[in-house]
Amino acid sequence: MKFVIHRDKLVQSVQDVMKAVSSRTTIPILTGIKIVAHSEGVTLTGSDSDVSIESFIPTEEDGNEIVEIIQTGSIVLQARFFSEIVKKLPMDLVEIEVGNHHSTIIRSGKAEFSLIGLDAEEYPLLPQIEEENLFKIPTDLLKTMIRQTVFAVSTSETRPILTGVNWKLENNELICIATDSHRLALRKAPITAENQSSYNVVIPGKSLNELSKILDDTNELIEIVITENQVLFKAKNLLFFSRLLDGNYPDTSRLIPNESKTNMTINSKDFLQAIDRASLLAKEARNNVVKLSTLSGGTVEISSNSPEIGKVSEEIQTADITGEELKISFSAKYVMDALKALEGTEINVNFTGAMRPFVIRATNDDSILQLILPVRTY
Amino acid sequence: MKFVIHRDKLVQSVQDVMKAVSSRTTIPILTGIKIVAHSEGVTLTGSDSDVSIESFIPTEEDGNEIVEIIQTGSIVLQARFFSEIVKKLPMDLVEIEVGNHHSTIIRSGKAEFSLIGLDAEEYPLLPQIEEENLFKIPTDLLKTMIRQTVFAVSTSETRPILTGVNWKLENNELICIATDSHRLALRKAPITAENQSSYNVVIPGKSLNELSKILDDTNELIEIVITENQVLFKAKNLLFFSRLLDGNYPDTSRLIPNESKTNMTINSKDFLQAIDRASLLAKEARNNVVKLSTLSGGTVEISSNSPEIGKVSEEIQTADITGEELKISFSAKYVMDALKALEGTEINVNFTGAMRPFVIRATNDDSILQLILPVRTY
Repeated sequence: MKFVIHRDKLVQSVQDVMKAVSSRTTIPILTGIKIVAHSEGVTLTGSDSDVSIESFIPTEEDGNEIVEIIQTGSIVLQARFFSEIVKKLPMDLVEIEVGNHHSTIIRSGKAEFSLIGLDAEEYPLLPQIEEENLFKIPTDLLKTMIRQTVFAVSTSETRPILTGVNWKLENNELICIATDSHRLALRKAPITAENQSSYNVVIPGKSLNELSKILDDTNELIEIVITENQVLFKAKNLLFFSRLLDGNYPDTSRLIPNESKTNMTINSKDFLQAIDRASLLAKEARNNVVKLSTLSGGTVEISSNSPEIGKVSEEIQTADITGEELKISFSAKYVMDALKALEGTEINVNFTGAMRPFVIRATNDDSILQLILPVRTY
Repeated sequence: MKFVIHRDKLVQSVQDVMKAVSSRTTIPILTGIKIVAHSEGVTLTGSDSDVSIESFIPTEEDGNEIVEIIQTGSIVLQARFFSEIVKKLPMDLVEIEVGNHHSTIIRSGKAEFSLIGLDAEEYPLLPQIEEENLFKIPTDLLKTMIRQTVFAVSTSETRPILTGVNWKLENNELICIATDSHRLALRKAPITAENQSSYNVVIPGKSLNELSKILDDTNELIEIVITENQVLFKAKNLLFFSRLLDGNYPDTSRLIPNESKTNMTINSKDFLQAIDRASLLAKEARNNVVKLSTLSGGTVEISSNSPEIGKVSEEIQTADITGEELKISFSAKYVMDALKALEGTEINVNFTGAMRPFVIRATNDDSILQLILPVRTY
């Protein structure tokens, strides 16, 4: 294998596939990056066996030569060293050449590295995925849907299925749901599917976080293929594979109340900042809990009290409040997470008494819903 | 105590004095910030008993009112909470009022915090320093001198005196020296002293790092007062006290060779980057060691070899090289630290054989010197 490549393109691709490489793998060859040079360009692969990322660098892009393939072939190089090396090479062009016994020369300007490589034949094959049933979604919408749900997954392995986001596709609508059993985030969007397929799968939160990091902010369509135990995201020059979580995701639809007793419309930023301030004293005591009390004149009070440190209270004016009087306590962190995920400046909060879950929605937008369980304080 | 103050000024001052506050102090009141309101303004103090910082906010600056003192007085508030609170207050103006039992109200807009304070009388007094003998130095020069030496202090407590920087003032010249016994950094500068005082003290590296962080990049003069066991830095509206280290600093003058056998003039950036690249493979094996070999034609080779990973070599062109042929091994980190501390694009390196310390200087600048001990590799 021998090729000459533009350093910047190589650095970008290496960074992308590095997202899948873990130093704590039990399969030694997966600490490496697989490099394949073929007539159309160079393909890099990184994997931790849960997530695999393949990045393709074409020989030519927009009429400019990016890679010159001198001899096709393949090699696996230690990811940590290879990624550090390419970042620090002195010149714009890099030559990579495999010699005897997988020894690989990386040359740029007068700097010459010789790395001990591994046989690419030993590298595990990526999942073979039949691309019969695929659906498409704009990349930026996908990133938004991930951002608005993935924060609510469970970080505890007690119920592993809750560490993933439930993706349901039905009737040309994609619904993403995450819950850690204290709060729930739901986001839906219409989808262009080629046929009337329906899916109900659970994608690890960690995979979605990594995917989100390497996707560009573009409205180009990304293709999604779901199989029994894998999901594949296909963007331009990039394949992202993730395994799916085994097991049935709980039915969350009956958690969402369809009636309410106190309804509030409020500026999202004012509400967020008041809770943020009240949580400053709550961080120490009682697990970050703040209290909301309805007052007269359309105002609510956000307060918190830590006997050893002090107390804080703040009145905020709502745009509208109707229904029963209410005093309710909740995790400041959960409500702040939910408010940050919502787009739009005005939100509706629907309460059903101090002991029942409450729902936050953006005004005039039913595509997103955040549900929070209150905290008992007496 | 009651005053109204501009939030931005308060935030800045609190951030400055926070640099001295440690949460791991054995004296509980030092986890607080002392606030004193007097007729000229508000003074904040933070201390961990090694370093104390006092920041003064005058009632008026450039004709604008910054503080309105309504009632003089003092209080100590928990630093961690107070600093978080002032950062997140909603309005430009903040009112602080001490009530009964040191309970303190912090008010901004409709947000109201009530913090349990402590009696300011219980707060330790700052060192009393007689300001008879002071000398002055431009603030930016002081920061440069700190930056060019402090990185070379020892991080080990085996010889505590080496965790500080040796400051010697004699004949209107200030000399700063740091060494961890593997490398040495020296920087000198002419000083405006009011009388012919001479000092030889050791200032903790940690204190100098904190000082450097809170000083502005300005050429205004900073006043320095040295006593038997304290040093005081006086900038505009800021006092910075540090204790000195006990004990005698070793005499380092005889470490610096006054002859050499191989002399090299080289571009600092080329040299630094080649060592940086060679150190990529050296990080794992043999304690980050790289090798320099003189070649013919005025070039040198920087190389490194890690049997399990691979090897790297790079030739660099020197501007000039004279004297004996040489092969020498050294810590890449130490040489890179030294090169980063040097200003100027061209440097001189003077070697006295493979087993003796070598010296790096900026060409045409004898105010700074970096000395490195080589590593034995055979």
